[in-house]
Amino acid sequence: MPKNRKTAQEYAEGILQGDRSLLARSITIIESTLDSDRKIAEEILRLILPHTGNSIRIGISGVPGVGKSTFIDQFGLEIINRGNKLAVLAIDPSSAISGGSILGDKTRMEHLSQKKDVFIRPSPSAGTLGGVASKTRESIYLCEAAGFDTIIVETVGVGQSETAVHNMTDFFLLLMLSGAGDELQGIKRGIMEICDGMLITKADGDNKIKAKAAMAEYRAALHLFPPSASNWIPKVLTCSAIEKTGIAEAFEMILSYKNQTSINGYFFERRKNQEIEWVNEIINEELKNSFYSHHQIKMMFPHIKKQLEKKFISPSEAARLLLQAFHELK
Amino acid sequence: MPKNRKTAQEYAEGILQGDRSLLARSITIIESTLDSDRKIAEEILRLILPHTGNSIRIGISGVPGVGKSTFIDQFGLEIINRGNKLAVLAIDPSSAISGGSILGDKTRMEHLSQKKDVFIRPSPSAGTLGGVASKTRESIYLCEAAGFDTIIVETVGVGQSETAVHNMTDFFLLLMLSGAGDELQGIKRGIMEICDGMLITKADGDNKIKAKAAMAEYRAALHLFPPSASNWIPKVLTCSAIEKTGIAEAFEMILSYKNQTSINGYFFERRKNQEIEWVNEIINEELKNSFYSHHQIKMMFPHIKKQLEKKFISPSEAARLLLQAFHELK
Repeated sequence: MPKNRKTAQEYAEGILQGDRSLLARSITIIESTLDSDRKIAEEILRLILPHTGNSIRIGISGVPGVGKSTFIDQFGLEIINRGNKLAVLAIDPSSAISGGSILGDKTRMEHLSQKKDVFIRPSPSAGTLGGVASKTRESIYLCEAAGFDTIIVETVGVGQSETAVHNMTDFFLLLMLSGAGDELQGIKRGIMEICDGMLITKADGDNKIKAKAAMAEYRAALHLFPPSASNWIPKVLTCSAIEKTGIAEAFEMILSYKNQTSINGYFFERRKNQEIEWVNEIINEELKNSFYSHHQIKMMFPHIKKQLEKKFISPSEAARLLLQAFHELK
Repeated sequence: MPKNRKTAQEYAEGILQGDRSLLARSITIIESTLDSDRKIAEEILRLILPHTGNSIRIGISGVPGVGKSTFIDQFGLEIINRGNKLAVLAIDPSSAISGGSILGDKTRMEHLSQKKDVFIRPSPSAGTLGGVASKTRESIYLCEAAGFDTIIVETVGVGQSETAVHNMTDFFLLLMLSGAGDELQGIKRGIMEICDGMLITKADGDNKIKAKAAMAEYRAALHLFPPSASNWIPKVLTCSAIEKTGIAEAFEMILSYKNQTSINGYFFERRKNQEIEWVNEIINEELKNSFYSHHQIKMMFPHIKKQLEKKFISPSEAARLLLQAFHELK
């Protein structure tokens, strides 16, 4: 055990007292892949669990260039100026390669990072998306226990991470650029249909008219989508982080979502389902992992693939052969 | 072995000669859950595999009431009048309950079912979606080996089956009603974004203007979606099965998709990926199944859920406890 390592009890107490340094160190323990750390992490979680859940969890996504950092900088100020305490977490599966520089750099939210009611934490910089997502979920719990009542989980609009963020938050906000052309290529298919709200960014100066036009187009498009189980109809707004317009309206939209879904019971029902789904996800990930990382399976797979391509065996036969080998080996 | 049961060799030869009765019986063997049948099924598949793949596989979905049967009836006539041989398969996870009456009834395609160049097969009426999908995929192979060069796989626009159909076909066609209101509620979120083409049905009589308006709206909406890896831009057309308009255009759209994606290499690349994905799906399904159907896990799960709800344990601890129990039991 490292010299200044505390007990789970001490970490938990520190978190509950709002000690930011102990909160940060606890998240580091949660992100660790060491078995010994995992044990402490689980203990910390068990101790703080009764104090979790009292927050609004907001997922924010958008392709690089959409102005996510400057938006969150202004949006965060709006949130704390209303007397809230804000934690900003990030999921960026690419940060394992980039070292987390895209989302990890605190200086990109220059106003927010200086505020005492704000806690900013970069994305864990290693692991699979499933692993990273799991750690971010647990970090949400820790932040809630430390008294943060508004949690932002941000991600870049590429890859599978939006679905992960959507599954761990209450409200999914998609930032979009006006001018539905090449800029959109980074957004994955299916993401537009899961958002609860959309913000057309950079609605300032000469760009204002274009942004309004984009808003109208996306409104018409979202209107065609099937309604979600929440009965909430996704809203489209514009905003400008430079002119500081549309920021308060964006937060009002989220509050009205929370209000509406709390009344119809969807809000807490969904959270309950998210937790069960999370258990299932960890289990499935683990089962797959034990299969695909198995030495013998790794050796067999390329050979089986070749046989498939040559039409010597069918996919179901390929699966059967692999599963048979796996079960015989155990 | 049943009295009139043939050898895999005999079935395979029959299929390759285009014997419809042996094709139908082979599909029954594929749909069977008996181990002995599974063995024969695998042998049949291995024998016919070299003769598969030479077709266009079209997925068709739409909510009940959209006019799927009458459309496919007319669409199928168009296909065979061009000299093609058509097989119509179905996936309906609900048919395990309904006995397959929705999709299984041949009489609902009255013109098509009388044609000699058409083979219609209802949805397997038992099993999980994963299981049903796997059997339908293998049925596609058998139909191709029997000389059917156009395969339609239809499904109802509810549940998860659209994704399954999307993953086993080359072109995904979504049928939609005009008047984007309550009628859409059956379509799952995210489905609109995966379609390669959309048809507004019942564009006849008084409904024509409404259908044209819907076409324009959906065109604008699909235009906002991120482009797919195929570089194909989804098209929106109208049709009427009664006035027999837009039917040929729908098929032309699919042919032009096949043409464009064959040139850029996407068509066969995607099929290759679909096969590998299929192997992975069977494996994952099997791994999950061995876990969740385990007696001890089934007993533990409700207890664990209760502890989660009471915030006694975290989701990751819940998953760990279940996985531990599973590994100790084996």
